[in-house]
This record gives sequence, structure tokens and C-alpha cells, in this order.
Amino acid sequence: MKKIAVLTSGGDAPGMNAVIRAVVRKARFHNVDVVGVYHGYEGLYNGNFELLDIGSVGDIIQRGGTKLYSARFPEFKQDDIQYRAIERMKEEGIEGLVVIGGDGTYRGAMQLTDKGFPCVGIPGTIDNDVPGTEYTIGFDTALNTVVESIDKIRDTATSHENTFVIEVMGRDAGDIALWAGLAAGAESILIPEEAYDLDDIVTRLERGVARGKRHSIIIVAEGVMNGHKLANLLEERTGIKIRTSVLGHIQRGGSPSARDRVLAGRFGARAVELLLENKGGRAVGVKNHAIIDYDLRKAFETKHQADLSLYTLSKELSI
Amino acid sequence: MKKIAVLTSGGDAPGMNAVIRAVVRKARFHNVDVVGVYHGYEGLYNGNFELLDIGSVGDIIQRGGTKLYSARFPEFKQDDIQYRAIERMKEEGIEGLVVIGGDGTYRGAMQLTDKGFPCVGIPGTIDNDVPGTEYTIGFDTALNTVVESIDKIRDTATSHENTFVIEVMGRDAGDIALWAGLAAGAESILIPEEAYDLDDIVTRLERGVARGKRHSIIIVAEGVMNGHKLANLLEERTGIKIRTSVLGHIQRGGSPSARDRVLAGRFGARAVELLLENKGGRAVGVKNHAIIDYDLRKAFETKHQADLSLYTLSKELSI
Amino acid sequence: MKKIAVLTSGGDAPGMNAVIRAVVRKARFHNVDVVGVYHGYEGLYNGNFELLDIGSVGDIIQRGGTKLYSARFPEFKQDDIQYRAIERMKEEGIEGLVVIGGDGTYRGAMQLTDKGFPCVGIPGTIDNDVPGTEYTIGFDTALNTVVESIDKIRDTATSHENTFVIEVMGRDAGDIALWAGLAAGAESILIPEEAYDLDDIVTRLERGVARGKRHSIIIVAEGVMNGHKLANLLEERTGIKIRTSVLGHIQRGGSPSARDRVLAGRFGARAVELLLENKGGRAVGVKNHAIIDYDLRKAFETKHQADLSLYTLSKELSI
Amino acid sequence: MKKIAVLTSGGDAPGMNAVIRAVVRKARFHNVDVVGVYHGYEGLYNGNFELLDIGSVGDIIQRGGTKLYSARFPEFKQDDIQYRAIERMKEEGIEGLVVIGGDGTYRGAMQLTDKGFPCVGIPGTIDNDVPGTEYTIGFDTALNTVVESIDKIRDTATSHENTFVIEVMGRDAGDIALWAGLAAGAESILIPEEAYDLDDIVTRLERGVARGKRHSIIIVAEGVMNGHKLANLLEERTGIKIRTSVLGHIQRGGSPSARDRVLAGRFGARAVELLLENKGGRAVGVKNHAIIDYDLRKAFETKHQADLSLYTLSKELSI
Repeated sequence: MKKIAVLTSGGDAPGMNAVIRAVVRKARFHNVDVVGVYHGYEGLYNGNFELLDIGSVGDIIQRGGTKLYSARFPEFKQDDIQYRAIERMKEEGIEGLVVIGGDGTYRGAMQLTDKGFPCVGIPGTIDNDVPGTEYTIGFDTALNTVVESIDKIRDTATSHENTFVIEVMGRDAGDIALWAGLAAGAESILIPEEAYDLDDIVTRLERGVARGKRHSIIIVAEGVMNGHKLANLLEERTGIKIRTSVLGHIQRGGSPSARDRVLAGRFGARAVELLLENKGGRAVGVKNHAIIDYDLRKAFETKHQADLSLYTLSKELSI
Repeated sequence: MKKIAVLTSGGDAPGMNAVIRAVVRKARFHNVDVVGVYHGYEGLYNGNFELLDIGSVGDIIQRGGTKLYSARFPEFKQDDIQYRAIERMKEEGIEGLVVIGGDGTYRGAMQLTDKGFPCVGIPGTIDNDVPGTEYTIGFDTALNTVVESIDKIRDTATSHENTFVIEVMGRDAGDIALWAGLAAGAESILIPEEAYDLDDIVTRLERGVARGKRHSIIIVAEGVMNGHKLANLLEERTGIKIRTSVLGHIQRGGSPSARDRVLAGRFGARAVELLLENKGGRAVGVKNHAIIDYDLRKAFETKHQADLSLYTLSKELSI
Repeated sequence: MKKIAVLTSGGDAPGMNAVIRAVVRKARFHNVDVVGVYHGYEGLYNGNFELLDIGSVGDIIQRGGTKLYSARFPEFKQDDIQYRAIERMKEEGIEGLVVIGGDGTYRGAMQLTDKGFPCVGIPGTIDNDVPGTEYTIGFDTALNTVVESIDKIRDTATSHENTFVIEVMGRDAGDIALWAGLAAGAESILIPEEAYDLDDIVTRLERGVARGKRHSIIIVAEGVMNGHKLANLLEERTGIKIRTSVLGHIQRGGSPSARDRVLAGRFGARAVELLLENKGGRAVGVKNHAIIDYDLRKAFETKHQADLSLYTLSKELSI
Repeated sequence: MKKIAVLTSGGDAPGMNAVIRAVVRKARFHNVDVVGVYHGYEGLYNGNFELLDIGSVGDIIQRGGTKLYSARFPEFKQDDIQYRAIERMKEEGIEGLVVIGGDGTYRGAMQLTDKGFPCVGIPGTIDNDVPGTEYTIGFDTALNTVVESIDKIRDTATSHENTFVIEVMGRDAGDIALWAGLAAGAESILIPEEAYDLDDIVTRLERGVARGKRHSIIIVAEGVMNGHKLANLLEERTGIKIRTSVLGHIQRGGSPSARDRVLAGRFGARAVELLLENKGGRAVGVKNHAIIDYDLRKAFETKHQADLSLYTLSKELSI
């Protein structure tokens, strides 16, 4: 292969720029050209291309977001649109494609591969919910953002003896809630993977109050329930005034953490290697500290499992 | 005076601990003892006192919140409660009181002074809305927290070409919205002090889109309107998808900024000097870079004025 | 005026990009074109120009450093070089120039003005040492960086009961040392403006040890003495093991603080107004919270005065 | 077991407080008492003990340093000192001990275990150099501190087209240099584990200059060479002006990252379990994402291996 392309798709995540940089630099190391595709699959269809040389990825390793922009493009599931995208790439001499995103992004990549155009997927999403890899790019950064925010809220919670419900991202995956709750010393953590027990939450709250605890923090993943709703439920049950904070979009931004940047470098380099070895239809991942690759289908045909041993641990440590 | 007391009241603000430290150290420099009162005026009434030596304020200069805790205590407006509080202090040999908080806090201090117990007020609130001083303790820190949060949101706004409404604190005062909006390069800023013009906001939004701007950020102080409501209004008018982020309680926490800590030192020292000079009923403030003092009444009988030249400037810079 | 230019010169400072943005946007608000000059005065001489439209200053308000780069160019003091630079600008239709930097930068601007080409200066340096203004762009950010670094060092100092000498920037001006020392609760602060008293430092150190203080932090501005040298002097005198940290170049970088960005907006806008009013040879500054302008000569013919009341205060609070 | 003790020893690391908290809470979950030992092994010898209840570890999860303090105590290698320490613990009814630190700390724990007093080790050091575990507590935080510092230096390096040598911690282990260099996009990385090739560093530097690269950053672990010395060597060879920054003690401090806090919780809980199962002489670690335990001797009898695949990767990505 002499020329490959790279795009970002789906929700943006800190570290995507570091992946783009790694793809370009690893490819250039092997004298392969890299074309950046703007606006995800929509840009692929429209031929929104730009050649990325070494200089073009200078000074982006530390930047949040994605310099290639991201967009939703549901039309990409249509076969004709996909064929047109492949045509576009072939016209430019592009022979392989790296996609960075979540499982939705991978589906398109698999379909292109099935149509004869080799694609490789790199997991980039703050939710950490891509099956087959222990971590996704952006998760570590989002986690630190959440934990720093909870630390700030704890200052005020402590000063006023308040109880807070904090809603964090995670529609189907509780990873952010679970890790952040453990890291921030939350009283209770509600995740989509486990049925919550309102009685237990109430008991913990009241036990904390009885012990003279100065504040309580309850973390809820957005997929379980709206934070305000949970606060209302708890107020009704306990008579304790509960405040709510919905962390929202700050969780997607920020300069990537060291871990996310290192992982970005490793993922980007492996993805290029896979294409150069003509191994399309693969996703890269990290397992047991090693970089692995596996069938793209696994990522969207199986379901991500959060590490529920952390859930048990959080219950023991928040006595 | 051989012994004074210090308390924090109202909403907590980063830098309150640095003020407490300065009060204790400045008093000890003059061989005056300092008693910390826990839980604000309620603790004053209940005699919730502790002698604070130099060591007890070690390692707190950098901490958010207030080690003396804060609480609401509406009963303190009753005369008998105030007389009881004065009695409590006299029993302990306390001869003067430093209160740290907003204008509500100052009212109680003035009433104690009127009853013969000299009190001095130090402005501590993130809202920057205490009349008579250019800055209050906590404002600078909150401002930086807000600006860093908007920076994070901008990452994702840029990647997805989104428009965001960001709701910040400020029920009656637009200082946070105004300064943060200017510092973050917001398109439009809505503050309680100025009637907003929906047409102008819409025009700016559409002009930005036409110019190919990748994102727009609109800041609204909570006192003007709920962020979600504003987003809905704008969506109806423009047809553009608008996202909302309510920054909430993270704005009250965090380690105080350098400015807030320096101001805390200057305020705390001056407050002690005023008591030692037997000047009760005074508030300390900063004006023209100098530390000043003025009648406590001014703080709750006049109204804080935001610097509206910043509002004009923001309009010119966000073309 | 229909076209002006802007350059950055001397040591870079966080917030320079925010000034550039403000200059461009304020000028565009008045339908004036702005040319960016790369590499400071050297670029002026070489005609290293680029037209800056609104889009070109998008997404830079939060960036450290300067997108126009900075450089030393001692040759610029020669008259013929200056005449050539003016010629270059006239060829491009440029009628006025905004320079951002310290007093060295201002000197060149004054000389161009004296040769008939109107220039306005904006103070941009972390050292806060430009006479005539209370603050310079970058000082607040550098201060926060220093204070956060000292906070980190205090963690380890406390854990090990260590004493630290921390060397900060400031060749001739003690502002960073003074403000940071006060904000970080330093035991002793050494600044170029005041003769230090080794006996006093030793006394404070030994008094802290006697009192059971867990750590001591001594701040020294680089202009007073090398940090390692001071540590050696103190070790010899006290027998206490002293560690040293030289903060170095991290003090120049980072995303500008909210304050620096707001000041950048105000300075940039006023500088453009001055040029449009044909008032060359002026520097902008902030005094008593208001934006002022004054003769550029004042900035390099007088000497900056640090606020020495802070020095006295630091001595009282670090008992 | 009804009562155990915990101490921190050696260089402090962010996250040690989170480990202490986890040990106390996990033990209390099993109704086991925990005694905190102040000042490491010296405190063990002196009986510097305090019972730690749930409340005593409140609000410390986010704090850098160690609330139990740390100290060097070389005398602890003497048998009689060790027997006295065991006696002290037995007098207090303590039946097991958790030590948090590096391999030096583990040696003492093994010797106590050999003398019949069961000890368990938890790896706490920023250097990541404890054999048998992939990560140590503090490494992730230190890494982020280093990377954020390099990001700041890059701002100024880019503005001035400078080359920087940055010296980071790591006497025998290159982990911080390697990970940080990769995460920060360094040109060259020098680690103790690999012989450096000055010609290669020079070539990379000159290639970057030739390509018009605006800055170069070279990371050197302190164990390889002093940063200033390396800068001198490179200046002599290239004639390029090289600046140096020695990051120093800021690398040990700061609030622990989310990862370090989660790992702290997992390590602390497992250590308590091991003691309750009467398994002394074990170290806890993380391997393949799972918490493991292994013979304490392995930690000081074998040598830590940095992941050298990162070294190769960094060479490919820094073309």
C-alpha cells in the first residue's frame, strides 16, 4: 500500500488527534501517504479529502476534539453510498482506511471491508464500551475530568454538609460511573449493568448521616436515570435535602491524559501495520497490557462488559 | 483586644480557608488569640467554638471550601438570638468578630455591632456581588473554573460544529457570565443587568454559521433564564440544533487561584487591624488596587454594579 | 486608517494569542484590515506578513505562546533597518502597528513612531515589570502555574518534613516571587527589590522547626540568587537538609487564565482605538481597574515598582 | 485477625492516602481495627501509633503525599530494631502489617515476616519500578504532571523555535521518561535501560530543523545524565542553542489521578484480604488488568523491566 486514509466518526473523544498523528507518522515512517477525511463517513462520500504530511499533525497531540471533525451520517448504511465512497477513495489512489470511533463507526468499516476495501478500526470513545478491548481512547481523560469535577463539588458539599447526586455520561455502559465513583469515594454508584436498590442507597445515606459524615456523593450513569429524578426519589424517602449536578459535555473535552496519548500512539501504529499487512476487517485493542487485533464484527456483535469486581469493591469501601 | 473570633457564612467560596489562615496569623502576629466559630451564625449562637493556633491553619491555604463550615440560620435576625450570641462570645473572652461571606452575612455583623459587639466583614462569595469592593474572594477561582469548562466544551463543539448554551451561576449579578464569556470568546452573553435581545442573539448565531464558524457558545447567567429554556427558544427561532450545559456546583469548589489567595491574605490582615483599632461595623474591600474599608451598611443598602464596559467590549469582539 | 499590523516580540507570555485575537476582531469591527507580522521585528524587516481575517484568529483565545512567533532581533536598533521596516509596511498599505511585549519591545515601537510611523504598545510579559501598568498579560497565568507547582511540592515536603528552596522567574522584578510566595504561604521570600537578610531566613526556618512545622518553603527570584546556592547557604547555617526546585520554563506556558484573557481583550481593543484616533507612541495599561494609555517612553525610561506592601504582609503572615 | 497496622515508607507518591483509606475501610468492613503508623519504620520502632477509624480517612482520597508521613530509617535493617518493632505491635494487639512503598520498603516487610510477623506490601512509588506489577501507585499521576509540564514548555518552545532538553525523574527506571516522551511527542528519549546514541539524537534534531519543525523536545531520565550536561553536549555538536528544564520535585506531588485512586482501592482491599487469610510475605500487584499477589522477595530480588516496545514505537513516531 502506498496511500491510506483516516477518519473520525461518532462522538468525539480526547486523544483522537493523538491517534491521527500516530497514523500519519507511522505511515510516513513506512513511506506511505495518508489522506485525512473530514466529517467522518459523510466526508468519505463527498470526497472531503486532504493529504496529511508530518507537519500537518504537528502540535495536535495535546489537543482535545478531532481536527478531522466528526459527524453523524445515517445514510452511510446504504450500499450505493458505500460504493460511491470506495470509488472516491480509489480515484485518489487510497488503498486502505483507518476509522476511529465506537461500534457504530466499526459497522461501516466492516461493510466497506466486505465490499473489498480494507478497513481497520481504532476504539475512540469516552464510554469505554467497545467490546474486545479493555480501554478505548478518551476514557481515561473523561474519567479524570469527572473525578476532578467531583473533587470540586466535594469542597462545597463538605462545607455545607450536603448530599449530592452527580449524573455522569454512560447510556449503556457504567464504566465512567463505576471508576469515577470508586476514585472519588462515592457512597453509592448506579450503573446500567446492575439493578439499583433504592433501599440500600437510603440506608447508606442515613448511616453516613448517623456517623456524622459531612457529605455524601451518589453517582448515577445517565442511562440509569436522570440525576434530578434520583435526587427527588431520595428526598422523598429520606427527607434530606439533595442537590444535583449534571456534568454534561465537559466530559468529552480537554487535553488527553498521558495514558490516552500513549494508547493512541500504540493503536495508531498497529492499525497502520495491519493495513500494510493487508489485514482489513480488524479492530485494534489492548488486552493484558498488549496491543491486539480482532475481527471488527466482534465489536458490534457482542456486548461490552464493565468490570463488575469494581462494583463490589465500591460497596465494601463505602461503608 | 486579646481575643477575636472568625466565622464563615452563606454560600462557600474558594479562598475562605486562606482568609481564615490570614486572620489567625495576623492576629497571632499581634499576640491576639483567635477562636474559630463552626457553622456560621448558628455556631455562634450555640457556642460551637475552637481556639485556632498557628498549627491549626497549616496546610489549608490551598483548600477549597471552608474548614469552619457554613450554614444558613435565618433565626439569627431575632434580637434575642443575637444577644445570646454576644453573651456566648463574652463568656469566652472574645472581643471582636470577623465574618466572611456575602451581603446577607454582613447584615448580621452590622446588627451585632449595633448591639455593641464590634464586627468586621470580609467579602467571600463567587458571585462578586458585594457592593463597595471591586472583587470578592472566590470570584477569580470560579471564573477560571468556568473558563476551563467552556474550553473543554469548545473542543467537542468544534469537532461536531455544534452550538452550545452554557448556564453559569449568577442570580442577580452577571459578573461570572460577563467575564467568563469575554474570556472564552462567547458569541453572546446574557446577564441579569441587561435586557437581552433574542433577535440580536439569533443574528449573531446565523452570521457565524454563514461565515463558516465551527461552533458558537452562548453564556447565560442563571438569573436571566434556565439554559435549557434559552436553547429551546433559539432552536425554535433558528432551526439549529442547540446543546445545553449547566455548569452547576463545580463553580463553587476547587483550590483557590493565586489572586484569590493574595486577596485573602490582604483582606484577612486588614480585618484584624480594624478590630485592633476598635473599628467595628466596617467591611474590607479592594478598590484601585488598594485595600479599603467602608461602612458595612453600604454593602447591603446599595447594589453591586457589574462593569458594563465589558458587556460592550464583548459585543465588539464577538462579531 | 484602513490597515494595521500586529506583532509579538521578546519573551512569549500566555495571553498573547488572546491579544492578537482582540486586535483583529476590534479592527474588523471597524472594517479595518489587520496584517500579522511573524517573528517580531525581524519579520517586520523581512516583510513576513499575512493578512489575518476573523477566521484566522478562531480557536486561539485559549492557547499559550504566540501564533505570530517571537524572536530576538538586536539589529532593529539600527536606523536603516527601521526605515526599511517602515517601507515594507507602507508597501503593504499598513498605516499603524500594534506591538505586544515588554519594555524592550516598546523601545523599537517608539523609534518607529519617532520616524513617523504610529505604533502602540501592549504589555505582554509574565514578569509584570512594565512601568505604567499594574498588570501585564501573562503575569496572572504564570502566577497560577507557580502556585500550583508549589502546592505539589508542598505535598512531598509535608510527607517528608522537608524544607524547600524554590527558584522562580524574575531577573529584575520580584512580582512573581512576591505574589506566589504570599499565595503559597512561603516562610521567606527573596526579591531583587529588597536586600535579603540571611539571619532572618534562618530564624524563621528554625522557629518553624521548633514549632513542629512539617515543612518550610522559601521562594527566591532568579535575579537574587540561584536556588541551589541559597539552599547551600542555608544548609551551612542551619544543618538542615534543604532541597531545591528550579521551576524554569513551565512558567511561560499554559493556557491563559481568565484574568489574562479579559485583560487581553481590553488591551487589544484599546490599542486599536488609539491607532484609529491616530495616537501613536502610546502604551496601554490598566490602572485602578480602568484601561489607560500613556507615553511609550515612560515604560522604558522609568522603573517598575513591585507592590512592597505585599512583602511586609508576607512577613507578618509567615510567623 | 482483629487488628492490623499500616505505614508508608520511602519516597512519597500521590495515591498513598487513597491506599490508606482503602486499607482502613476494607478492614472496617470486616470489623478489623487499623492502626496507622507515623513516619514509616522509624515510627514502628518508636511506637508512633494511632487508631484510624472511618472518619479519620475521610476527605483524603484526593490528597497528594501521605497523611502517615514517610521517613528514611536505615537502622531498620538491624535485627534488634526489628524485634523491638514487632514487640511494639504485639503490645498494641496488632497482628499484621501493610507497608506501602517501593522495593526498599518491601525488604523490611519481608524481614518482619521472616521473624514471624505477617506483612503485605503495596507498591507505591512514582517510578513504576517495583518488579512483579505492571503499575505502581503514583506513576500515572506523575506521568500526567510531567506531560502537562512538557505541554507548557512546548508553548514557549514553539513560539521561539527552541529546542529543549527536559530532565525527568527515574534513577534506574525509564518508565516516566518513556511514557511521557511518547505522550508528549518528544523527538528523542534517553532512558537508563538503553544505551543512547548521540549521533542519532543529533540527526533527529537536524532533520527536524531541516523540515522546518518549530521545536524539538528531548526527554532524559535523571539516571542517564544531568539535563544541563546533555544540553551542552548537543549544543557542541549542533551549534543549536538548547534550553534545559529540570522538572524536579513537582513530579512527586499533586492530587492522584483517577487511575491511581482506583488502583489504590484495589490494592488496599487485596492487601487486607491477604492478611485476613494469614498470607504474610506477599506483595500485591496488577497484571493483565487483574489484581495479583506474589512473594515479596520477587520485588527486590528481580529487576523491573520497562516496556521497551514503547521505546521502539517512540522512534518510529518521532520521525
